[in-house]
Amino acid sequence: MTQVICTVDMVLLTLHEERLKVALLKRDREPFKGVAALPGGFVHTNEDHDVRDAAMRVLKEKTGIDAPYLEQLATFSGAARDPRGWSLSIAHYALVSYEVIDRAGHPDVKLVSVDRSLSLPFDHRLILETAVSRLRSKSQYSSLPCYLAGETFTLPQLQKVYEILMGEPLNKVSFRRKITEMDMLEAIDGEFESAGAHRPAQLYRLKPHFKKQLQLLERGL
Amino acid sequence: MTQVICTVDMVLLTLHEERLKVALLKRDREPFKGVAALPGGFVHTNEDHDVRDAAMRVLKEKTGIDAPYLEQLATFSGAARDPRGWSLSIAHYALVSYEVIDRAGHPDVKLVSVDRSLSLPFDHRLILETAVSRLRSKSQYSSLPCYLAGETFTLPQLQKVYEILMGEPLNKVSFRRKITEMDMLEAIDGEFESAGAHRPAQLYRLKPHFKKQLQLLERGL
Repeated sequence: MTQVICTVDMVLLTLHEERLKVALLKRDREPFKGVAALPGGFVHTNEDHDVRDAAMRVLKEKTGIDAPYLEQLATFSGAARDPRGWSLSIAHYALVSYEVIDRAGHPDVKLVSVDRSLSLPFDHRLILETAVSRLRSKSQYSSLPCYLAGETFTLPQLQKVYEILMGEPLNKVSFRRKITEMDMLEAIDGEFESAGAHRPAQLYRLKPHFKKQLQLLERGL
Repeated sequence: MTQVICTVDMVLLTLHEERLKVALLKRDREPFKGVAALPGGFVHTNEDHDVRDAAMRVLKEKTGIDAPYLEQLATFSGAARDPRGWSLSIAHYALVSYEVIDRAGHPDVKLVSVDRSLSLPFDHRLILETAVSRLRSKSQYSSLPCYLAGETFTLPQLQKVYEILMGEPLNKVSFRRKITEMDMLEAIDGEFESAGAHRPAQLYRLKPHFKKQLQLLERGL
């Protein structure tokens, strides 16, 4: 019986130019050398505490990015998905604001809209589609979209993030009621963003507890 | 770098005596020989098409049970969970009616209420808790509980199954509206179950399409 090849792959998602985008990395080795793919790598039993740890390490090593919030997506497996042999990839997804990716400034990382019809190596397209679908359905019931909104944001900006993910306009009053219900934001004392002709808008940030921990809603948005 | 030990574990859930129970199997080898645990085994790269296939094979080989519906739960991993070394288990869960387990009649399988404080080897307790929590939250939004209800059932019987999983009584009218909305049941011509002093109740079964495929509800029960 041959050994199973154990890898992790990372779907790193962000919002840029009002679109949900995924970070692809040009592969620096075979198979598929030079091709843009999800950042991934082998599980290292000598240094990874578990597969979550492996996913964080691989993301950091390959792209220079730390993702405060990441989640296991699913395990993809089989004889055919990797030309090297029977393999499995424990796929994770992470959400960061565009600034985090921009700041890391990795030359081989590029952001591509998830709505484009992408041709990706391995089964990365399936992994990506699974992640996007998970994010979209979870957005309705959780604080997940907040991780895309940056360090600080106004409520209109946050509503826009939710709307882009959910693909539909949201009612402002009910959106604010749900956000209040989740009790995950704190207003930043004295910080406002001027909004053109409008009254300056209060800036908010996630309460520290929710930077790495999701908040859930009983009933969706 | 040492190899990763790749296994699958199966959380097989059923309803018996109005309780949600898990099937435990006495282990026939070390580690933990003789101890009751979730049925599990190694991924066999020479015969398993993927990990789902491995989970179905292991369940069938170890307990004699075929589960029409099973789902990947999550992957549990690390250096400490298995005394043999750095390992991962791609855990799956499956739902069957009590009759299926009873019919298989495996002498080393026992059913234990998931609400009992169980001491289990490896990280099986965490795997079990994750499965039960997934089932309970998904019950509200899907046809998942139907797999526990047996081949045929009346609507009151099905409602009871949902109520046991969700831990609360449900309103009969709204339950029936949601079930109708899911459009997953078919009445069996001329089959009724007599219900004591009551009018005999129509028997239903899942439409063939939904025997292996979940039906989802937009808004929960």
